[in-house]
Amino acid sequence: LQQGNFPGAKALLVPVQPADIAEAIEGLPKAMQAIAFRLLSKQEAIEVYEYLDPSVQQSLITELRDQEVLDIVDKMSPDDRVRLFDELPAKVVRQLLQQLSPSEREATSLLLGYKVGTAGRIMTTEYLAVKEDLTVSQTIERVRVLANTSEIIYYLYVTDRERRLTGIVSFRDLVIASSEQRLSEIMTRDVIFVHTDTDQEEVAQIIQRYDLVAVPVVDTENRLVGIVTVDDVLDIVEQEATEDIYALGGVEAGDDNYFQKNIFTAARKRVVWLFVLLLANTGTTAVISAQENVLEQVVALAAFIPLLIDAGGNVGAQSSTVVIRGLNLKTVGIKKALQVITKETLTGVLLGVMLGIAVIFWAYFLEGSLPIALTVGISLMAIAILAAVSGSGLPFLFGALGLDPALMSAPFITSVVDVLGVFIYLTLARTILQL
Amino acid sequence: LQQGNFPGAKALLVPVQPADIAEAIEGLPKAMQAIAFRLLSKQEAIEVYEYLDPSVQQSLITELRDQEVLDIVDKMSPDDRVRLFDELPAKVVRQLLQQLSPSEREATSLLLGYKVGTAGRIMTTEYLAVKEDLTVSQTIERVRVLANTSEIIYYLYVTDRERRLTGIVSFRDLVIASSEQRLSEIMTRDVIFVHTDTDQEEVAQIIQRYDLVAVPVVDTENRLVGIVTVDDVLDIVEQEATEDIYALGGVEAGDDNYFQKNIFTAARKRVVWLFVLLLANTGTTAVISAQENVLEQVVALAAFIPLLIDAGGNVGAQSSTVVIRGLNLKTVGIKKALQVITKETLTGVLLGVMLGIAVIFWAYFLEGSLPIALTVGISLMAIAILAAVSGSGLPFLFGALGLDPALMSAPFITSVVDVLGVFIYLTLARTILQL
Repeated sequence: LQQGNFPGAKALLVPVQPADIAEAIEGLPKAMQAIAFRLLSKQEAIEVYEYLDPSVQQSLITELRDQEVLDIVDKMSPDDRVRLFDELPAKVVRQLLQQLSPSEREATSLLLGYKVGTAGRIMTTEYLAVKEDLTVSQTIERVRVLANTSEIIYYLYVTDRERRLTGIVSFRDLVIASSEQRLSEIMTRDVIFVHTDTDQEEVAQIIQRYDLVAVPVVDTENRLVGIVTVDDVLDIVEQEATEDIYALGGVEAGDDNYFQKNIFTAARKRVVWLFVLLLANTGTTAVISAQENVLEQVVALAAFIPLLIDAGGNVGAQSSTVVIRGLNLKTVGIKKALQVITKETLTGVLLGVMLGIAVIFWAYFLEGSLPIALTVGISLMAIAILAAVSGSGLPFLFGALGLDPALMSAPFITSVVDVLGVFIYLTLARTILQL
Repeated sequence: LQQGNFPGAKALLVPVQPADIAEAIEGLPKAMQAIAFRLLSKQEAIEVYEYLDPSVQQSLITELRDQEVLDIVDKMSPDDRVRLFDELPAKVVRQLLQQLSPSEREATSLLLGYKVGTAGRIMTTEYLAVKEDLTVSQTIERVRVLANTSEIIYYLYVTDRERRLTGIVSFRDLVIASSEQRLSEIMTRDVIFVHTDTDQEEVAQIIQRYDLVAVPVVDTENRLVGIVTVDDVLDIVEQEATEDIYALGGVEAGDDNYFQKNIFTAARKRVVWLFVLLLANTGTTAVISAQENVLEQVVALAAFIPLLIDAGGNVGAQSSTVVIRGLNLKTVGIKKALQVITKETLTGVLLGVMLGIAVIFWAYFLEGSLPIALTVGISLMAIAILAAVSGSGLPFLFGALGLDPALMSAPFITSVVDVLGVFIYLTLARTILQL
């Protein structure tokens, strides 16, 4: 491509899949992307464009001529178009929206009208709906006429005269049925559907639960307005998992690829959380300062502070990890809170005893003082239990308060474990060492 | 149900979806599960059974009479049956396998022969394959005959005389085509497929990347042997995310629901990791012990150790979280390691400077000593940079060594940050405070 061998480059691109072409284009330097993209045929360009990363889609829009942009945007699936519009500046969106063909404009405005994160926003309006009194052969005629849509379709959605969803027919049903049967005779009536305002996470769970390929979306009057397909749901499941993982790691999640951000954005996404934790540490520092005289008399105690804090943090992280994941996947509910906390606490006791005993031997070996070793070991047991209780309890508490447990738990667990842990340690030292 | 109102209970169960019935049965006390299950019609029982949790499937097998069990197991989809067999004791599996009808036995043995975690193990053998020289109307005849399989089907797989996969035809293509056309004329030839030994994570990525509903699986001679459907992939994506989250939280992941384990299993899944971290802390304790004289002279320094360790741990966790997630989702590769580490390091510098300056003011306010405040602040900057470097670098290192970065990174990052962090802090204190 760099040598100007355009037909050669085109020949290389043609036989492969749109998703692969999209990745190849993303890998090119920015100036090359528009050139490579122009080599594609119109139909290819539209398919490839839908697979491109939003940031590349955006930069292409500014690179290409207005008419080229319009051709592509007009032919995109409504759901992909809405996702692109979410990324573009409002001015560009308004301009593009005006220039779309009327039917596409209407479909897009409809989707843009729904709240981000709902079924209405992620659905596509490209589905095949047929009336229930059609015969199989009439339906097949109709499908032939309508079939030049770009979204892949697996079901026909059957509606009554008021466009209310009454059933679904798979293409397989259609092939198997005799041509004179009416759709109302062969359709499945127990249709699982969602509403336009159903949360996207719930849509994902429904598709997953019932092993669906697509789920129809209806408005408040049960009229069919769109479908959500499983490929969008796969992306949602992965995106939600990434958000959870980032939240657990103390990184604010965004819509796009973290690795394409510059360092200032990356730092901004992380600094708030670090300051919260720094503030939480005030308590720990204050506790140690207040008991400085204990450390003054037995400085050796300070050597075990990192161990106690780390171990407590780890036990707490383990408990909160399983509870938070369970809450997010709905495998455990608020109702079971007491049961889970009890179990985690008992696990904490078990872990605390094991770790505590190991540490007593180890600390005795290091410092040669049994009182110090006992202080460290017993503190560790107490801290492990404390960590298990707060690690399993706080996520439930935040969940019940309507806050995101993944985001909120870590700083609070760290604070509780550190402050109380150090306090227990130094108080115990005062008692055991008779200071 | 507890009042013996069986017909009533049955009436309640009938109109709902198999997945919902399965959940209702799982919610019953163990003794009731078999009774409720027997109320279902044969066809329903099979469908519901496939949706049940493996542990409930297993307990039902022991509760039901042999003939009942056999009826169900024989009618299950081969892929669901293999998943059940993975959970059952080897003796029961052998016995059941012998009693299956010959065709089902063959299909199951085939799947059981592939390694766990590969496409061969998760695929189903219930797909529709047709020869490429059939006409559309012949194909439709054939589909009518074969259509009583339980797995939902969206594509016909077209093969040549040697059963090698040559194309796919969707039911929509079939409906649209004229009845005399041959499949070889209307089929899509650029088929995306996987091999029986392809890793299940890769299968998931391929289905996701190309927005597929199912992907055909071929053996070493390119003969079609099965398909993997998107609903299985959704489960895999979620399961892999859970494994990653657990690994990051220091919990060993298993196949089943963590909340159904007893506390000893739960503790076992976590104690190894805790001991590794405890061991890693030896270094920290040793460094502090070695420099005890510094702390002896200025005990106030001890008060800031938790803060420095926590902040370092957090910055490291943030960097490793994004890198590990990126590695697992393949959004970032080993090739980009240097670029990512450089960026993370710069982010670390930025975060270190912000946190360090804040801490200098704060430590001065607490202790009223500028040298101590400067020691804490400068140490924090150094620790943040150190944490960013090790947090972003170690996952790449473990990835390159073929180890799971999610599992390995946390203990090593904690060790590096704690040991070097405390060392930097106390050495700096010695210099600045001229001890």
